[in-house]
Amino acid sequence: MQVSQPWAFLSLLAGTVSVGVALALYRWVSRQDAGSERAQEVASWIRDGAKTYLLRLYVALTLVAVALGVVIAIVFSFDIEHLGTGAMDVDPSRGVMMALAFLAGAVCSAVAGYMGMTIAVAANVRSATAAGDSIGRAFRVAFYAGSVMGLAMVGLAIIGMSGIYLLTGDPEIILGFSFGASAFALLAKAGGGIYTKTADIAADLVGKVEIGIPEDDPRNPAVVADNVGDNVGDVAGMGADIFDSYVASTVAAMLLGSSLFARGSLSQAKYTLFPLILCTLGIIASLIGIQFVRVGKSGKPGRALNTGTIVTCVILAGLAAAVVLLGDYSLGVLWATLAGLVTGVVIGFTSDYYTSSDFRPVIETARVSGSGAAINIITGFSYGLVSIVPSIIGIVVATLLSYYLAEFYGISGIYGIGVSAVGMLSISGMIASSDAYGPIVDNARGIAEMAGMSQEVIDTTDVLDAAGNTAKAITKGFAISAAALTVLALFSAYAEVVGARGVQLAISLRQPVVVAGVLLGAVTPPLFSALTMLSVTHNAFDMIEEVRRQFDERPGILAGTEPPDYAACVSLAAQGALSSLVIPAFLAIVLPVLVGFILGPEALGGFLGGSIFTGVIFALLMSNAGGLWDNAKKFIESGEFGGPGSDAHRAGVVGDTVGDPFKDTAGPSLNTLITVMSLVSSLFAPIIAAFHLL
Amino acid sequence: MQVSQPWAFLSLLAGTVSVGVALALYRWVSRQDAGSERAQEVASWIRDGAKTYLLRLYVALTLVAVALGVVIAIVFSFDIEHLGTGAMDVDPSRGVMMALAFLAGAVCSAVAGYMGMTIAVAANVRSATAAGDSIGRAFRVAFYAGSVMGLAMVGLAIIGMSGIYLLTGDPEIILGFSFGASAFALLAKAGGGIYTKTADIAADLVGKVEIGIPEDDPRNPAVVADNVGDNVGDVAGMGADIFDSYVASTVAAMLLGSSLFARGSLSQAKYTLFPLILCTLGIIASLIGIQFVRVGKSGKPGRALNTGTIVTCVILAGLAAAVVLLGDYSLGVLWATLAGLVTGVVIGFTSDYYTSSDFRPVIETARVSGSGAAINIITGFSYGLVSIVPSIIGIVVATLLSYYLAEFYGISGIYGIGVSAVGMLSISGMIASSDAYGPIVDNARGIAEMAGMSQEVIDTTDVLDAAGNTAKAITKGFAISAAALTVLALFSAYAEVVGARGVQLAISLRQPVVVAGVLLGAVTPPLFSALTMLSVTHNAFDMIEEVRRQFDERPGILAGTEPPDYAACVSLAAQGALSSLVIPAFLAIVLPVLVGFILGPEALGGFLGGSIFTGVIFALLMSNAGGLWDNAKKFIESGEFGGPGSDAHRAGVVGDTVGDPFKDTAGPSLNTLITVMSLVSSLFAPIIAAFHLL
Repeated sequence: MQVSQPWAFLSLLAGTVSVGVALALYRWVSRQDAGSERAQEVASWIRDGAKTYLLRLYVALTLVAVALGVVIAIVFSFDIEHLGTGAMDVDPSRGVMMALAFLAGAVCSAVAGYMGMTIAVAANVRSATAAGDSIGRAFRVAFYAGSVMGLAMVGLAIIGMSGIYLLTGDPEIILGFSFGASAFALLAKAGGGIYTKTADIAADLVGKVEIGIPEDDPRNPAVVADNVGDNVGDVAGMGADIFDSYVASTVAAMLLGSSLFARGSLSQAKYTLFPLILCTLGIIASLIGIQFVRVGKSGKPGRALNTGTIVTCVILAGLAAAVVLLGDYSLGVLWATLAGLVTGVVIGFTSDYYTSSDFRPVIETARVSGSGAAINIITGFSYGLVSIVPSIIGIVVATLLSYYLAEFYGISGIYGIGVSAVGMLSISGMIASSDAYGPIVDNARGIAEMAGMSQEVIDTTDVLDAAGNTAKAITKGFAISAAALTVLALFSAYAEVVGARGVQLAISLRQPVVVAGVLLGAVTPPLFSALTMLSVTHNAFDMIEEVRRQFDERPGILAGTEPPDYAACVSLAAQGALSSLVIPAFLAIVLPVLVGFILGPEALGGFLGGSIFTGVIFALLMSNAGGLWDNAKKFIESGEFGGPGSDAHRAGVVGDTVGDPFKDTAGPSLNTLITVMSLVSSLFAPIIAAFHLL
Repeated sequence: MQVSQPWAFLSLLAGTVSVGVALALYRWVSRQDAGSERAQEVASWIRDGAKTYLLRLYVALTLVAVALGVVIAIVFSFDIEHLGTGAMDVDPSRGVMMALAFLAGAVCSAVAGYMGMTIAVAANVRSATAAGDSIGRAFRVAFYAGSVMGLAMVGLAIIGMSGIYLLTGDPEIILGFSFGASAFALLAKAGGGIYTKTADIAADLVGKVEIGIPEDDPRNPAVVADNVGDNVGDVAGMGADIFDSYVASTVAAMLLGSSLFARGSLSQAKYTLFPLILCTLGIIASLIGIQFVRVGKSGKPGRALNTGTIVTCVILAGLAAAVVLLGDYSLGVLWATLAGLVTGVVIGFTSDYYTSSDFRPVIETARVSGSGAAINIITGFSYGLVSIVPSIIGIVVATLLSYYLAEFYGISGIYGIGVSAVGMLSISGMIASSDAYGPIVDNARGIAEMAGMSQEVIDTTDVLDAAGNTAKAITKGFAISAAALTVLALFSAYAEVVGARGVQLAISLRQPVVVAGVLLGAVTPPLFSALTMLSVTHNAFDMIEEVRRQFDERPGILAGTEPPDYAACVSLAAQGALSSLVIPAFLAIVLPVLVGFILGPEALGGFLGGSIFTGVIFALLMSNAGGLWDNAKKFIESGEFGGPGSDAHRAGVVGDTVGDPFKDTAGPSLNTLITVMSLVSSLFAPIIAAFHLL
């Protein structure tokens, strides 16, 4: 595969530059004015809380990763091509390589999350402080801090993938890397989602409702856990989410390239490498695009973020066209890339329609809220169901377009679907940067309030925050549709991997065992959602007990003369979140393997299909309905339909609280869930196939 | 097909006996004491309201049925085997036959619903009056009235199916009958669901919340519409629902029997007829089982209903075993029958676990309600998601068992799946009787209160009502799982019909066009649910305006000196419900045909699969979550966790109101939706296949 060497080195270089820029921005942000002593004190609570949680998370995940790594090392040491025959060999080197790739994936994901999170908790106070100076400056601090995570993430991902490719030339080993990244992402995301809403609900119920102190009141022992939660769930979690889709889509397309083109041909080498090239181009485009994200004195932060995204897309399209033409690739891959790219952006903006107070769904939900919480819930939930439709149509169009255009230009249509997913995700550097900006300015607003900054500063941070919410909505739609295309590509990769081992899969819905697999797969995402949401309420009740205990035993806390024990709440939330992950992790990692061994590879194909279908649907439903309820409440708070304190507002608060675990706990973990299930199936596919042939 | 004649005549006879018994019970119930003048007056409002609605519904549906009948007559007059060749003939007789079968299906469904509904609105007041005498007598009146619908329904269904079979010998014509029944059921059920919740929500919001008058207060102009709604939605709607599954499962199994066995063989004739025989045995078993449903002086109505169900099952099993052994059928069909029967009953009782206040989900939801409506909603919704799992596992087990046991005994496994659905549904006579009992005693309780009967009578009707709720939960679980097995059989029938026209379908998830179809099919049930629920809130607001107008213009109403205009509200709800049906009907009937013509028969196969998967999941979620919230509220009202008037109660009321359209509007229509989509696809399959071959 001589042709691939220079490109793989270029990818490695681009990844290194990306990480380098991330480090430079990290330094720049750290050097900004950290503000008044009071602001620094408030920020330090959040920072320390975040570190406590991350430490616990990483200790727990290290144990899981090492255990899984050992299993992988053992399993992949067996030469399963000869399973059941006397000729079965043991080759520990392959097993060790796979296990190392797995650990590398987990570590890269962890490092990117850690960098993103530490800079986010440093940037929030700095952005709030800069808001006293100008909105442009405050925006820059927040956005550059967001870029630290975006760039570190894509940089580390591509370093890992191209490094493994240079070392082994085997996309299946990169699958191990991807599995490591996704398994970590799932636990980080689901754990973070449970953590953040446990703290949020407990802080609200005992503080606002029971005692009657305002939100973000420093006397509330749960308030730090609540603010930590925003960073844990939104920065580290969403970062890990995009990281895992990014890697998974690339490895799926590489696997398809290596199996769908003639073995040993130049085409095979070229098309196996193309996804990596596309990622490299995406990094270059993102690095340039980020330069265009600027806010002038009276500028609009929302428009600045959109400009950055669109510039990045245009540059990527140009670069991709150049590579396809100069590198003598089929035009099919260019069209597939563009189909994915355009669809991702369109779906992102569509999800804005269902969650923004500029459009009918949010306004209508706010309007009917005057008739009570139940009507608010029914209406919001119904619009959430409707919001699934355009995104699914987008995914269908992208799938069919990239398939048939690739076929039209003479290459495999399935490979085209894989490339369209990579095309969509190649601009992840830019997308993740805008996304991480959101929680930073959200926190900046909280700090401005808690530290008693001026009203002008609070107003500026409000403007920044509103743009952050839109960016978040767009990213969520983008992340879900990207994950959908990715898992569809992984699904095909699974069938190819099994096929390469001599088991031809039809995965026909006319086989009852496939239908059984689909039905079992289809209930997994709803069950996963339910378990994480029930954990939230369960853990929130434990935390409420702890807060009540502190208030009872130390009356000085409420009097304001004694600081509450923030760490106890942080630790309780962390402990609860981690122990709630056991069954969900089992569902994600062990269940597909069990289905494969018990019901066979056809049923496992159906199982993956079923989990993809309902996973995408529930992810869209829960994310969009949650965002819609949130903004309907904010719309009422802005003075519409009765304004704060009205019946409509009370109903809106109920809707918002229902939506919280929908959009921040259950919904966003689902993409990662289906990615992990698809990866674990592809990874174990050769063994399941060999077992099946016995 | 000589062998089949005597059996088909026996079926016709059994159907006639069943209808005859229904008529006799109708007379018996009508002759019972109709109580005091006041009670009769209250009952007459409900009866007149129900008639107003039914009249409008039937006029609208007659137009739809005639229009569809004309389309069917034209389309099926073409000899599509020769489409595109010069040899294409026109044979109007087949088209007319198909259209007549379609109309007959719609009429039978309408007549069964009409009989059930008129006897229900006559029986409610009679049962309330009998409650003054003894609980056993009150129970008998209500249950015999329920049996009128159950027996009329299965009787008319089997008369229609065996009549057509005797006349034409062609199961595809029976498909037309089934389509007529299902299309009618869908509109009756969705319309009834919208109607009942429109009235319920409007009556509550304007009466209880705005004006502060009690529930069921006769001064509220919406109160009659509310009580009518119970009959419209629960009696006529659920009856039509089971009717359509019953016919569809039978015709699916007959189609599979006629296509999977060697053409012209004795086996083909025997196995094509077997589903009809099973229905006949089911009617005999139900007629006997109903005799065992008796309540003594201090007896338990819940236990009486369960005894009837179990006796019916045992008798059916015995009769089926006799027929299989004496008729020299494969043992595979006996096992498939039993697998279906047992699974149906087990799933029914499982759904009781998630919706009864004897078990953890309802108790836990009630417990957390003290922390507010949002926590109640999140918890109930999460348990609703969990409740999907056991039912789906049951369906998977029934599918695989009936498939592999049939194969083991040397007949087609797919046919086994079809028979298991018929086995499950063959006891529909008994199941529908218990189900229709529920709303009758619910209404009896309302009348007892509105007519000012003694506390003793109210207490007796309360006991009867509690048993009705359990029966309702069991029926819903049963109906959904039966529909799931039915549509899986129809799905296979679709593929067989297309295959018989020379287009071999794989419906492989590895084909992008199938995946596209699955995704589009999968969003249809959520979209359908959302549209019906949004109609409910929309129409409720119109009705609130009407009620306010009446109160404003005629102050005598609230003073109690002037009767309100009940008919205006009934008519408004009816009008709103019917006009809200246009888009849902389009989704059900036109969309599958469009997908088939545009994306092809493989994509249509995927579309059906996708709609089945999410249809079943959302139906279970919405029915169970709705029932759970309802009973959690009732549990709190019984004095637990603070009792009536507490914070927990207020939260429980919100949950109950959210659950209302879940369980009575959106959830229960979904089975019918997927049945209609499967039927319309099978019906048009030959044309789609011919078009595809052009």
